[in-house]
Amino acid sequence: MRIEKDSVGYLEIPQDSYYGVHTQRAVNNFNITGHRLDRDFIISLAEVKKAVAQANSELNVLSKEKAEAIVQAADEVIDGKLHEAILVDPIQGGAGTSSNMNINEVLANRAIELLGGEKGDYKLINPNDDVNRGQSTNDIYPTAGKLTMLKKVPKLMAQLDALSQTFLQKAVEFQDIMKLGRTQLQDAVPITLGQEFHAYYSVIKRGMHRLSIAKTEIEAINIGGTAIGTGISAHPELSQTALQKLREITGENLVISDDLVDATQNVESFVVLSDSLKAIAVSLSKVANDIRLLSSGPKTGIGEIKIPARQNGSSIMPGKINPVIPEVMNQCAFLVMGNNVTIGLAAEHGQLELNAFEPVIFYKLIESFEALTNGIQTFNENCVKGIEADRERCQENLERSTYMATPLAEKIGYEQAADIAKESVASGKTVKEVAKIFNISDDILNDLKVTIK
Amino acid sequence: MRIEKDSVGYLEIPQDSYYGVHTQRAVNNFNITGHRLDRDFIISLAEVKKAVAQANSELNVLSKEKAEAIVQAADEVIDGKLHEAILVDPIQGGAGTSSNMNINEVLANRAIELLGGEKGDYKLINPNDDVNRGQSTNDIYPTAGKLTMLKKVPKLMAQLDALSQTFLQKAVEFQDIMKLGRTQLQDAVPITLGQEFHAYYSVIKRGMHRLSIAKTEIEAINIGGTAIGTGISAHPELSQTALQKLREITGENLVISDDLVDATQNVESFVVLSDSLKAIAVSLSKVANDIRLLSSGPKTGIGEIKIPARQNGSSIMPGKINPVIPEVMNQCAFLVMGNNVTIGLAAEHGQLELNAFEPVIFYKLIESFEALTNGIQTFNENCVKGIEADRERCQENLERSTYMATPLAEKIGYEQAADIAKESVASGKTVKEVAKIFNISDDILNDLKVTIK
Amino acid sequence: MRIEKDSVGYLEIPQDSYYGVHTQRAVNNFNITGHRLDRDFIISLAEVKKAVAQANSELNVLSKEKAEAIVQAADEVIDGKLHEAILVDPIQGGAGTSSNMNINEVLANRAIELLGGEKGDYKLINPNDDVNRGQSTNDIYPTAGKLTMLKKVPKLMAQLDALSQTFLQKAVEFQDIMKLGRTQLQDAVPITLGQEFHAYYSVIKRGMHRLSIAKTEIEAINIGGTAIGTGISAHPELSQTALQKLREITGENLVISDDLVDATQNVESFVVLSDSLKAIAVSLSKVANDIRLLSSGPKTGIGEIKIPARQNGSSIMPGKINPVIPEVMNQCAFLVMGNNVTIGLAAEHGQLELNAFEPVIFYKLIESFEALTNGIQTFNENCVKGIEADRERCQENLERSTYMATPLAEKIGYEQAADIAKESVASGKTVKEVAKIFNISDDILNDLKVTIK
Amino acid sequence: MRIEKDSVGYLEIPQDSYYGVHTQRAVNNFNITGHRLDRDFIISLAEVKKAVAQANSELNVLSKEKAEAIVQAADEVIDGKLHEAILVDPIQGGAGTSSNMNINEVLANRAIELLGGEKGDYKLINPNDDVNRGQSTNDIYPTAGKLTMLKKVPKLMAQLDALSQTFLQKAVEFQDIMKLGRTQLQDAVPITLGQEFHAYYSVIKRGMHRLSIAKTEIEAINIGGTAIGTGISAHPELSQTALQKLREITGENLVISDDLVDATQNVESFVVLSDSLKAIAVSLSKVANDIRLLSSGPKTGIGEIKIPARQNGSSIMPGKINPVIPEVMNQCAFLVMGNNVTIGLAAEHGQLELNAFEPVIFYKLIESFEALTNGIQTFNENCVKGIEADRERCQENLERSTYMATPLAEKIGYEQAADIAKESVASGKTVKEVAKIFNISDDILNDLKVTIK
Repeated sequence: MRIEKDSVGYLEIPQDSYYGVHTQRAVNNFNITGHRLDRDFIISLAEVKKAVAQANSELNVLSKEKAEAIVQAADEVIDGKLHEAILVDPIQGGAGTSSNMNINEVLANRAIELLGGEKGDYKLINPNDDVNRGQSTNDIYPTAGKLTMLKKVPKLMAQLDALSQTFLQKAVEFQDIMKLGRTQLQDAVPITLGQEFHAYYSVIKRGMHRLSIAKTEIEAINIGGTAIGTGISAHPELSQTALQKLREITGENLVISDDLVDATQNVESFVVLSDSLKAIAVSLSKVANDIRLLSSGPKTGIGEIKIPARQNGSSIMPGKINPVIPEVMNQCAFLVMGNNVTIGLAAEHGQLELNAFEPVIFYKLIESFEALTNGIQTFNENCVKGIEADRERCQENLERSTYMATPLAEKIGYEQAADIAKESVASGKTVKEVAKIFNISDDILNDLKVTIK
Repeated sequence: MRIEKDSVGYLEIPQDSYYGVHTQRAVNNFNITGHRLDRDFIISLAEVKKAVAQANSELNVLSKEKAEAIVQAADEVIDGKLHEAILVDPIQGGAGTSSNMNINEVLANRAIELLGGEKGDYKLINPNDDVNRGQSTNDIYPTAGKLTMLKKVPKLMAQLDALSQTFLQKAVEFQDIMKLGRTQLQDAVPITLGQEFHAYYSVIKRGMHRLSIAKTEIEAINIGGTAIGTGISAHPELSQTALQKLREITGENLVISDDLVDATQNVESFVVLSDSLKAIAVSLSKVANDIRLLSSGPKTGIGEIKIPARQNGSSIMPGKINPVIPEVMNQCAFLVMGNNVTIGLAAEHGQLELNAFEPVIFYKLIESFEALTNGIQTFNENCVKGIEADRERCQENLERSTYMATPLAEKIGYEQAADIAKESVASGKTVKEVAKIFNISDDILNDLKVTIK
Repeated sequence: MRIEKDSVGYLEIPQDSYYGVHTQRAVNNFNITGHRLDRDFIISLAEVKKAVAQANSELNVLSKEKAEAIVQAADEVIDGKLHEAILVDPIQGGAGTSSNMNINEVLANRAIELLGGEKGDYKLINPNDDVNRGQSTNDIYPTAGKLTMLKKVPKLMAQLDALSQTFLQKAVEFQDIMKLGRTQLQDAVPITLGQEFHAYYSVIKRGMHRLSIAKTEIEAINIGGTAIGTGISAHPELSQTALQKLREITGENLVISDDLVDATQNVESFVVLSDSLKAIAVSLSKVANDIRLLSSGPKTGIGEIKIPARQNGSSIMPGKINPVIPEVMNQCAFLVMGNNVTIGLAAEHGQLELNAFEPVIFYKLIESFEALTNGIQTFNENCVKGIEADRERCQENLERSTYMATPLAEKIGYEQAADIAKESVASGKTVKEVAKIFNISDDILNDLKVTIK
Repeated sequence: MRIEKDSVGYLEIPQDSYYGVHTQRAVNNFNITGHRLDRDFIISLAEVKKAVAQANSELNVLSKEKAEAIVQAADEVIDGKLHEAILVDPIQGGAGTSSNMNINEVLANRAIELLGGEKGDYKLINPNDDVNRGQSTNDIYPTAGKLTMLKKVPKLMAQLDALSQTFLQKAVEFQDIMKLGRTQLQDAVPITLGQEFHAYYSVIKRGMHRLSIAKTEIEAINIGGTAIGTGISAHPELSQTALQKLREITGENLVISDDLVDATQNVESFVVLSDSLKAIAVSLSKVANDIRLLSSGPKTGIGEIKIPARQNGSSIMPGKINPVIPEVMNQCAFLVMGNNVTIGLAAEHGQLELNAFEPVIFYKLIESFEALTNGIQTFNENCVKGIEADRERCQENLERSTYMATPLAEKIGYEQAADIAKESVASGKTVKEVAKIFNISDDILNDLKVTIK
């Protein structure tokens, strides 16, 4: 064991560990979720550290030698190494200080090694004075949080795009299948199955568009703001210099926030990003509900589409095929909708120069991204792609309904058409049959038709 | 106009108005909802003022003459008079101070009149020194809020009871109607329609039980705690003396909170009351969804029950009868679920010795009570009472299904039964017909039956 | 009384009422909120009816005479007349059918009068066949809902703009007031009061930008989609013709939704609009919290700013001035955040070709707009405009803090600076005094300074 | 590899795996969270399986030999073995069917081994026909969910109890420390620090009481209801027989739900349990906020208490000690409040005979339990236990305030006392000093005192 010291006192640290005293304190203080930091988050932290080390070196506030060692250590983390030394719980007090301290310590100790030193010999590379130079948790952590979400967005977008394309293909495939539309779960007027699936395509495309707008919000990063956005302890050119490095490293279209004081204390951009996920969740839950309704049956429901059987539906009812995939889509949506409340709450609780509750915001936002991305993937692959129309059932349901009352009303007025429709339902006769009894002329009845745009 | 003065300065008040300067300031400051205080809330405020005036008189800190005048004025408010002088917006800053000031001024001015004085002559009766004697907004306002909710609970309970009884009657009426049960919107196994309606009865009874428990929470009132629960400025016996008066006035089983400091700053009992409404809302929304599903059709849905037509369903589709009453039940539930979030947020935001956000808590809680009570009333009266079973449809759907596969599995094993069920759905043949093809013996098939507990 | 008939049966209607049987049924069915439709909503309904009547006339599916009478009646409603005949509860089952029926009946009866007929003589003008020609609730009601929100947006935007300008002016006014910044409620490093107020400006501007984006979503209207978006019963050119009319009538930059089937069933654009209000609410609640923190005291809090006294703060504690205006801002924010959950829930519950829960969406969205607009107005007028800095207090707090430890760390390293800061807090000595004891050279200490960008 | 078959078709399964085809399908279908089932949940599933196997054996519908093998396998799972074969994602479609299938397969294959067979040889012990005999996912899964929560409740209760006891001890320790109370963040009237900490005790005790009530709701289990609560395929005495076994196995005070049809479709008891967590979360977040306010400083905040330093507070500001532990308590509360929305949503979405969304309910409820339990533990151990009073600061703040205006008002009236208080704040003189200038007699001033109950 080696001994390390912080403001609280001395602490034993395993001799060969890359983390140090600050990490160990945090591990003792925060045992909340039982999980580790998201992998993309760890990489994003390393990317920020790399960019700032490069910038500090260029600005001559960090020696080339130190900078190169830190950059090399950061590259290893970016390549997926050393992640096991990032121990802190993602939900932590302190606005992310523990995550920042953890990456600082890991990079410092690895850089020390690279320089030929022993772990813990912080005279070679100091976690705070060197790795964290010109930085504060309060600009680094939200910046890394934004980079993380920028890694999550395209994964979600890809799944949304794939799902939307599947719906579009189905819209084409089903474009000539006339069927009954329903409002308020009651028989209404004709539509094509293709139009229904096109609506699912349309609503997803709209969600994608909103996600792309929300994404731009998190491209504005905080680097150089340090503790409260005023840039204390940072070189005056650090913001712009590190920005260029980070754009190169990540390939993202990053900018520095216009008002870094604001950017340090107001984190509602993450709320807005979460809202864009929520709007998608709301839409997809409705689509999943529809798929479940349209495939209800097999014998006594609507049954106008068939979804692929993916597993036995019941442990007791043999042969039962349940819509398990749309159901998991629903649940992902409920998860996102609840997380959205947590994220809003946490953002609202910022005080004065800082929002200290970013850790739970990031944790829940990442969970929302993952659940939605994964939920959509299985929804698309294991359900929507395999949906088949039951053309006979569509036709049968259409014919059994009283939809002809609507075009009839155009000819004879709403009131009489309503009487005819009512009698049609009661008697089981078709609208046309009843209309004849009501002495509606053949000219009118022969001319009845429904046009669908 | 008469001139009144507060710490801010002088203000003109209409000569004949019962309210005074504090009310007028609040009206200028708070124009949020466009609504007035709930009627039950105004009465509850008057009840509290009456009880404390009586107690103060008994404890000799308020003259008999003043007390009698205040009590008489309060009785008028309790009888529904003077409400038009309660002008303040229900959503207001200041933890309800403006509502308290408003009732103080109205009672003072009315009491002054009763004593033969002119409105505004506060030497006779002072709104703060006399009407508010031994009180603070911080004990009076939550106490009145609790009395208000105690008036709302039985109204809601009565509607819940009525609805539950209707469901129980329907459960009896439909007890012999065998039909198909559905899980995950897929055909499952038999049930009776009576059992389905009994489940609706059961879940409502459970909600009523929880509401009755939550009600006991708000029977613990704050009187005598004054500003921060320490009783400053109140006679040491005021709590108990006023409690007895208030029990007599309201007939409620009130007690004084064990820890008045806690009771002044922690208002989570209202969250708990709101939660009990939310649990009812969640349950009733599910019931309303079921009613809409079971009555879907008329031709191409499930159609196993018929709900009464209450109005034309569509402005364009003649004869369409929509489930408008269950739909409004759903919407009331959504309202309650959202209000529950607001109420939780507001309760969480209390700081140190006080929760200053009770006004929005009360406003939203009252809205939840009203919407739920009114929604249930129309759901019961205009929908559930008139529900009829479509016995033929129930029978037809049952027979078309593959429910026999489940008892068959008990005899021949899950795996083979699953194969038979699958073939039954695919071929349109019954389970028994397919089973014969699979060489299942007549002994087994003749013995198949479903028992329903 | 006159007798009117619908599919349910006959009903007596007061002879001189503009509304008819469908309205009366709805009044009987829906007594939920005790409120009437929002005035802007009524006007928007009339605008839509006017535009479609003009379009139908131009397309020769409605006679000029009828159209002119309907348009004249609609103009009266737009001018604020006849609103008292719009009786239906804003929360109603049926996807807004009752609101649509109500405006149809009122316009029909008024148009009948204008044509010299008697109210109820629907042969002259029929509410369904003429006023509602080529329309369904399902395209008219969401279109009117969108027009309503388009009327609410600029009102809110104006208040946001005014508040942002006040904050900007304060930022300039306070730009030279150096003070202590705080993170996690703990003393941190220097900032100017102007920077703090500029951050409030910045976050509001961002909210305004998002609101302007969300506004564009609701410019896509549904006219011509009729019952399920397929345009049944409408003239093929109705969409575009009525669109032009409606653009002229409202001056809004309206378009027809790309996919009317989608637009009829998916109402998540209202969720997105509500989300944009929520993001503003989250931000403003944080700002209000800050104002309350910074003005806490007067003697034992932070007390770096003074907010204007707007009313007596307490009924028991004389002279107490409370931050009642920021507190009402908080409550408006909580209301908006809860309503956002209701709106999301309602949108998610759409089924198949329609979302039947728009009434509660519109009701809550309007409430959110009103509360936020009104809350911001009083926040700006009655609080922010009158905020004054306490320069002495700002200076005093800054000097008492240990902020010099941060620039010191740049010189001597984080670890030793931490020891010095710790000792400074413990001893009550300044950082510089302690640093001398720690043998830090005068050169270093004289060079310590904080630069604020 | 071995080959297994379900209704979908054939699938290769690793030869030595305890899980089977149904598990593998589920793994392919559901990759949502990246996590496994909670350990307590797995054990609870095994407990249910054990109890039912024992009951089935006793009722002679399962052979003694099979039953004993299943029971022994279940005991191994209860002892923590075989958990690695429970592969399914906790969020899954199908109302928990996959979790049930997974445990069925694992127990079957282990039991087969115990009987000397080869894994996959389901003729010896069949997952559905033997392990799942007389059961359905729809009664087993909610029963196991309830048993899981019954394991979580005491863990949380223990932490709540410990925290409440700490607060009670602090209340005693601080009972003689007079200090200033604050309402609306403004100086109010005296209180003791002990009273403040007693309020924190009181609110936690109330939360514990509610949790204990909510716990009773989930003691009513579903066993014997099978698919839809009607008991199809189960021995008529299975409910009561298995109940007795399960009471013995778990030691819990279990009962069978009164209405098993209701219990299968209505899962709002979990909402109620989540609500009880939410009420605790709301209360503890307020307490954490208070601790952060009271310890704000160290120099320019309220600073009346000191919380223990647990780690360096800042990576840039040396010596900064931040309230990281209360902050993580806040975040746990936000998490619980958002999860509560998800749980309510999922419960509301039940349809007809089943709620298919229990998986997300259980997942989020377990997360809430864990975060709250862990958050409270660190809050108690690492913060509250170490809180110290700053007696001098308490005294100093009290004396600087104008609290004497309140008892003064009792003597001279509210209005004049308000003028005096206003002047006291403005001038910096004490209330008594100003009162003398206002010619208040020494008799009155000498008699001023504040009594605290």
